[in-house]
Amino acid sequence: MPSDTLREQLLDFHAGYSRCIATDDLEGWPELFSADCVYRVTTAENEREGLAAGLIYASSRAMLRDRISALRHANIYERQRYRHITGTPYVLDSDADCAHCETPFLVLRIVQDDATSLYASGIYKDVFVRDGRRLLLRSRVVVCDSRRIDTLMAIPL
Amino acid sequence: MPSDTLREQLLDFHAGYSRCIATDDLEGWPELFSADCVYRVTTAENEREGLAAGLIYASSRAMLRDRISALRHANIYERQRYRHITGTPYVLDSDADCAHCETPFLVLRIVQDDATSLYASGIYKDVFVRDGRRLLLRSRVVVCDSRRIDTLMAIPL
Amino acid sequence: MPSDTLREQLLDFHAGYSRCIATDDLEGWPELFSADCVYRVTTAENEREGLAAGLIYASSRAMLRDRISALRHANIYERQRYRHITGTPYVLDSDADCAHCETPFLVLRIVQDDATSLYASGIYKDVFVRDGRRLLLRSRVVVCDSRRIDTLMAIPL
Repeated sequence: MPSDTLREQLLDFHAGYSRCIATDDLEGWPELFSADCVYRVTTAENEREGLAAGLIYASSRAMLRDRISALRHANIYERQRYRHITGTPYVLDSDADCAHCETPFLVLRIVQDDATSLYASGIYKDVFVRDGRRLLLRSRVVVCDSRRIDTLMAIPL
Repeated sequence: MPSDTLREQLLDFHAGYSRCIATDDLEGWPELFSADCVYRVTTAENEREGLAAGLIYASSRAMLRDRISALRHANIYERQRYRHITGTPYVLDSDADCAHCETPFLVLRIVQDDATSLYASGIYKDVFVRDGRRLLLRSRVVVCDSRRIDTLMAIPL
Repeated sequence: MPSDTLREQLLDFHAGYSRCIATDDLEGWPELFSADCVYRVTTAENEREGLAAGLIYASSRAMLRDRISALRHANIYERQRYRHITGTPYVLDSDADCAHCETPFLVLRIVQDDATSLYASGIYKDVFVRDGRRLLLRSRVVVCDSRRIDTLMAIPL
């Protein structure tokens, strides 16, 4: 691989993130975050009104691992699959160590014997840090467009 | 930011355009066009039959500003949001001053307390001109795939 | 066009592939494959269970040409259009001659006088070979997320 620009690294990151979830490699998902990180899921409405609480909140990679572990054991989710499609990253700010970016996404839910549906859309508000040649998420706030989002949300967005 | 190729500038442009509408920064939208520009919305069917009229037509940035101003004052649109996702730009032709490109898009409409729906899909047929390091739209023809498109279309596509 | 990286060539390839189908240039579609190629359409469920058969199978460019020819003559498909949106390519492996990549996709179906619907989503599992400065598909396995896929599937995915 030749020397990458930030944009190329961002595209790679998003492609890898989506693939991690699509292939059910959920144990790989927390490893895309830095050890000390924030992962928060909220709605555009809550975000506009300054309600930081959100639907899901985790403040470390260890919490994300616990979340996946619980998900595997509880096995609460039905036989369904998710397909993430991400748009083009918009870089707000970047320096040698850190990048602030926003990327729109949509997620389809595929349930066997049923029609595929739009599950969620919104924007990732991300802070990336460098880990050698890779990027890691220092913070991901998932702002869902609709407030009609399944609060169970077993699967990572 | 390192020296950008045309492709990178195009990706940046589309990301910024989508973000402008998603964040309700509608006043910023006309500024993505050159002063002397064309913005036209039509359907694939009309385009195939050579009907140039289209659903919306503006021939200057000033007309686009008027359109946004009217939209703000009339306040006709309900509490809804739009999420643009653009595909990969296809460059038909480019030189130092100008680039002809086509980019597929889809737009989701999010209405509170209702399911998110596919609002529109189609292709942007664009002519870009350079303005320093930025690109501006000299012409955007939005060719919608379906003729079932809301003719009100308050929000820019 | 400046010297392209593999990533840029991949983005160009996918943009051209989608455009070929969207513009009804179906005769151009087989030319995106190498003479000796594989094109297979299957479902995630079949793929998981190791059922290689799939829904569609072709083992040469000549077979793809025949398929398009039959499609044109049979004219079985109604007046409908397809809009492909592809996500970011994920490069699994590449050398000077060959690249293995996966790219998520979604396809919308537009039927006149009807609402646009989600037709298919899934992943392209591709092997590319170089043909001068272009890429050609040595193999494309289209893995559809849902098993509820129209088995007729007149139009190339």
